[in-house]
Amino acid sequence: MQLTILGCHSATPRIDTNPTSQVLQIKNHMFLIDCGEGTQVQLRKAKIKFNRIKHIFISHLHGDHYFGLVGLISTFRLLTRETDLHIYGPKGLKEVITLQMKLAESWTNYKLIFHELTSTKSELIFEDDKVEVHTIPLDHRVYTNGFLFKEKPGERKLDMNAILNNDIDVAYYRKLKQGADVVDNNGELIKNSELTKAPAPVKSYAFCSDTAYNPSIVPIIKDADVLYHEATFLEKHAHLAPKTKHSTAKEAAEIAKLANAKSLILGHYSTRYNDYEDFREEASSVFDNVLLSKDGKSFDFDDLRS
Amino acid sequence: MQLTILGCHSATPRIDTNPTSQVLQIKNHMFLIDCGEGTQVQLRKAKIKFNRIKHIFISHLHGDHYFGLVGLISTFRLLTRETDLHIYGPKGLKEVITLQMKLAESWTNYKLIFHELTSTKSELIFEDDKVEVHTIPLDHRVYTNGFLFKEKPGERKLDMNAILNNDIDVAYYRKLKQGADVVDNNGELIKNSELTKAPAPVKSYAFCSDTAYNPSIVPIIKDADVLYHEATFLEKHAHLAPKTKHSTAKEAAEIAKLANAKSLILGHYSTRYNDYEDFREEASSVFDNVLLSKDGKSFDFDDLRS
Repeated sequence: MQLTILGCHSATPRIDTNPTSQVLQIKNHMFLIDCGEGTQVQLRKAKIKFNRIKHIFISHLHGDHYFGLVGLISTFRLLTRETDLHIYGPKGLKEVITLQMKLAESWTNYKLIFHELTSTKSELIFEDDKVEVHTIPLDHRVYTNGFLFKEKPGERKLDMNAILNNDIDVAYYRKLKQGADVVDNNGELIKNSELTKAPAPVKSYAFCSDTAYNPSIVPIIKDADVLYHEATFLEKHAHLAPKTKHSTAKEAAEIAKLANAKSLILGHYSTRYNDYEDFREEASSVFDNVLLSKDGKSFDFDDLRS
Repeated sequence: MQLTILGCHSATPRIDTNPTSQVLQIKNHMFLIDCGEGTQVQLRKAKIKFNRIKHIFISHLHGDHYFGLVGLISTFRLLTRETDLHIYGPKGLKEVITLQMKLAESWTNYKLIFHELTSTKSELIFEDDKVEVHTIPLDHRVYTNGFLFKEKPGERKLDMNAILNNDIDVAYYRKLKQGADVVDNNGELIKNSELTKAPAPVKSYAFCSDTAYNPSIVPIIKDADVLYHEATFLEKHAHLAPKTKHSTAKEAAEIAKLANAKSLILGHYSTRYNDYEDFREEASSVFDNVLLSKDGKSFDFDDLRS
């Protein structure tokens, strides 16, 4: 599981700071999360193959989180994409994208499938055999969701020594991986736990931007391996946070602590700050494992655990 | 009069190639012409003060000519702009911009004035005491206009030697500048041409992107000092030009020749080409003074004349 930050700054794109966009590589998926202006160029810089993106998750309809989407959709068309593209985001997104396609008289030759979100409760919005994605209702000036990406537990691993010692027929291997007990060649029942080992532990990633300090999300993101939480302000500007429905670095850390997250990545820095180390420092007073996002930086979730 | 190319490439923005956008400095105006994705960052790179832009001209509603507009409008808001902003472009532009503002619940605190264009004939769309702007109806896949920017003739210049020799009262200077004949202190009529010199010659700039080869625009752009004409293709791909309603470098040069333009700037290069010198070479076989646009490059119209 790997997260690449394409942009982690709030508000306006500038020469060296890009608005929010991330790519999460999880199992065989390449999920794009938010898509500020310039995301397609950031994807090229990060050498991410456009065709691998099949699902795009948009948190909310402020421009710094989605103004790059219509351009990316057009570019996919120009690159003669054929693969379906699923877009998850607030109601209204479909209207604004289709209006622009209509005005350009340029429809996609691939299938564009919108999954418009309106619920204010966490819901399962994507699931296959390996991964599930849930919304995280956030508290911002417009309807906003974070997203929780969770690996599903894999199959149990065969303990080949125990299997050979117990003379288990190869026909049972599939059932064993699925957790069933089996009988040996003498007709004796052998417990699954004696023949298999636990699957690799599953990982999860919670993306929370933009939001005011909102402890009601804690049960949803509980025990997340990695929590990305917006930290638009430092505590010295704490008075601006509730007004703009953003968080401070300290508040982000408090959420990480309450949720028992393993790592916290900060981002969505206000353009008023130059030194992002201040964000790490402030959050570290509350929570141990604080990391700073940076445009172009990748986080490997295995490295974060060690 | 100075033209700065912010982007001059067709279709998709890439790491080093930006879609169409230009800034024309003419008299006291800073006109933005087209606004592809990433234009606001290109404006920063060119160190152009955002507040000086009061008029934006959009040729057509293909994404590579306007997807950067909504972001620029938002950024103006975040920068607490107060100055009115006039936007000239095809019908539909207002709807798409206001829909996005509505979804973001973010209205501008400055006045946003749309001038939607629908005419298929050239029309005067802006005029003040120094400058006028006319549309140039182009032939593209959707409704498209180029724009002709023209300086108005200034006042005549006083010939101070002649004025002092003829003993002309200072009260007449204003009338002289406006071209009137005057009487000297002896009551004798003296012709204006004996006391003044012609004003500085006026300049004009014609922007023509995107369009198929379309000689019907020639009377509109006749004698333009500088003609920017799209050259998406080279002649070796001439078969693609009518199909996509674009032009080749040679066709652009033919328009420049027919219009008796003084200089021709080529741009809107297809991404299939690497060496843009081929465009200059091809166009130069038809027209003498061919220049290549390049992202970030400025053209001073006085230098072009010499």
